[in-house]
Amino acid sequence: MTDTMQRVVLAARPQGEPKPTDFRLESCPIPTPGKGEMLVKTIWLSLDPYMRGRMDDSKSYANPVQIGERMEGGAVGEVVVSNLPDFSPGDYVTGQFGWQSHAISDGVMVRKLDPKAAPLSTALGVLGMPGITAYVGLNDFGRPKAGETLVVAAATGAVGSLVGQLGKAYELRVVGVAGGPEKCKYAVDELGFDACIDHRAAADASTLRKQIASACPKGVDIYFENVGGKTMEAVIPLMNVHGRIPICGMIAWYNGPEKNVSDSHAPMMVPKLWRTILVNRLSLRGFIIFDHFDRYPDFTKEVAGHIASGKVKYKETIAEGLESAPQAFIELLKGGNFGKQLVSVSPDPTR
Amino acid sequence: MTDTMQRVVLAARPQGEPKPTDFRLESCPIPTPGKGEMLVKTIWLSLDPYMRGRMDDSKSYANPVQIGERMEGGAVGEVVVSNLPDFSPGDYVTGQFGWQSHAISDGVMVRKLDPKAAPLSTALGVLGMPGITAYVGLNDFGRPKAGETLVVAAATGAVGSLVGQLGKAYELRVVGVAGGPEKCKYAVDELGFDACIDHRAAADASTLRKQIASACPKGVDIYFENVGGKTMEAVIPLMNVHGRIPICGMIAWYNGPEKNVSDSHAPMMVPKLWRTILVNRLSLRGFIIFDHFDRYPDFTKEVAGHIASGKVKYKETIAEGLESAPQAFIELLKGGNFGKQLVSVSPDPTR
Repeated sequence: MTDTMQRVVLAARPQGEPKPTDFRLESCPIPTPGKGEMLVKTIWLSLDPYMRGRMDDSKSYANPVQIGERMEGGAVGEVVVSNLPDFSPGDYVTGQFGWQSHAISDGVMVRKLDPKAAPLSTALGVLGMPGITAYVGLNDFGRPKAGETLVVAAATGAVGSLVGQLGKAYELRVVGVAGGPEKCKYAVDELGFDACIDHRAAADASTLRKQIASACPKGVDIYFENVGGKTMEAVIPLMNVHGRIPICGMIAWYNGPEKNVSDSHAPMMVPKLWRTILVNRLSLRGFIIFDHFDRYPDFTKEVAGHIASGKVKYKETIAEGLESAPQAFIELLKGGNFGKQLVSVSPDPTR
Repeated sequence: MTDTMQRVVLAARPQGEPKPTDFRLESCPIPTPGKGEMLVKTIWLSLDPYMRGRMDDSKSYANPVQIGERMEGGAVGEVVVSNLPDFSPGDYVTGQFGWQSHAISDGVMVRKLDPKAAPLSTALGVLGMPGITAYVGLNDFGRPKAGETLVVAAATGAVGSLVGQLGKAYELRVVGVAGGPEKCKYAVDELGFDACIDHRAAADASTLRKQIASACPKGVDIYFENVGGKTMEAVIPLMNVHGRIPICGMIAWYNGPEKNVSDSHAPMMVPKLWRTILVNRLSLRGFIIFDHFDRYPDFTKEVAGHIASGKVKYKETIAEGLESAPQAFIELLKGGNFGKQLVSVSPDPTR
């Protein structure tokens, strides 16, 4: 145990895409846990698109990170010192420990992990927040029926890859949208999607729409929305009557909602969207996963089973060292990751 | 029984607002009903906003009316000649008889009416299609809970006036939006709304938003959407977390979806809407009432009871003669009606 720790703080509010100078790596003394607290040493830090929202000073479902404050984030760590009855040194735990090498925690919303049941890092991906997001969105708001067609964007990401694989388990036709031929090939060959369309190869929403349409001969019953942007504009007009759109994210617009509305000369306006919702009797449902943590037991049971049987696969991209987190996050927002983006903050003793 | 009948046909597809010359009144011989058919003499014709959609040659939930073809519409009539076992001359019936003085019907989707139970014209309004639209939208997709706040647009229209009165019966705070001081006064004084905002007096969506906001101190839980336009732009940002938006119409945009997007200089774009849906976890549900006719028994039981007890009131605007239908319809699209818009095609013997 060293005497100093590292953390990444928000140095400036980004204008559009975050830059490395919007973050700052700081050192400080490792704090001593008080009564009812424990000290956790971070092993894995999770990077997720929602963190971009926390960097802006605007109303959202959670408070923004203040300038000079540590960046928010889920992590996996090992308990070093504990003044809590339920946690002991050597326990592996997951919680919102933030972008730092060591964290003081009161144990609230912290889960213990069994490294024999699943690799520790999966608590941040397929068996964690992205996984339950996929599970709840598809089941509770997508309401899938065998034989229907599901389109999922960011198809090889932490959420999308599970959405699509669950879709196949539920006997849906699954069409992914991903950035680049390598990801598309992986979605089909490894994840078992029926097709995957490369949005980078499509010049505009209307070209992308034609390609998705030809992969969805019976139209689209469920569009799992986690990107917005060109993909959203491409898919909405393909929705079948009584289609469902669970909305959990819109990464294409995180770096500036006013920009990137459309790459075409006639961006989709609200009246056109509204008309499609009405005429096709669509259900749209925005959801934030922390409203639905009561679904953890069902989710864990089903998805852990699929992982054990090999029906569900997952992929990780690992950045080395806390200092690499800002650049890895900037790349994530551009789709530079392949699968779940993690930062290795200290070695995982169970690997 | 005369030998000739009148009908109104679509003369031309409107560009934007319909003009009188987009319609044509024609005379023709009264047809003779064949085997399995009956002849119905129209008493009341219903005028409804959805008819504007049928005049366009674009994909919707129903086929467009062709040029030279009779305009589509619900009506109440009296059976004159019947070759159907279930219908006899003198029966009062309601069905999609169209804009004409006489109709041949096969009896499918035709309901018999008891003039002693309720005035015949209510089968086209508060106890008919607009009524069940209000009932299903508010109950099934609005999911009201006592103490919540409901905003309803077109507050004194055939749908909106019932939505608001049912809202009061369910112990909601009900705020209407209507065009002009007379309608607003009626909504509060006669229909019992808590408040009603005059959208004509508000210069733009943001002014209207401030007025609605001050009438909704606890935010908006349910926005019953039947107009789109400025009202929609005003209300969406006021939605509470877990708010519900049943969408049954968008009359503000019927005369041209590309126009009338906003009266402000920064129209609401899809990304902003999408973000609100996500952050506030909203449910949006487009619905077309013919998917929900299984709810007729529940609806009729509840609303007929409210009418009998005086809890629900309704208002009618009557245009005299089939030849007045086009102008009355043009006015309806501009909000010129006050309550349910009917055309008196022939005298109602039960009035």
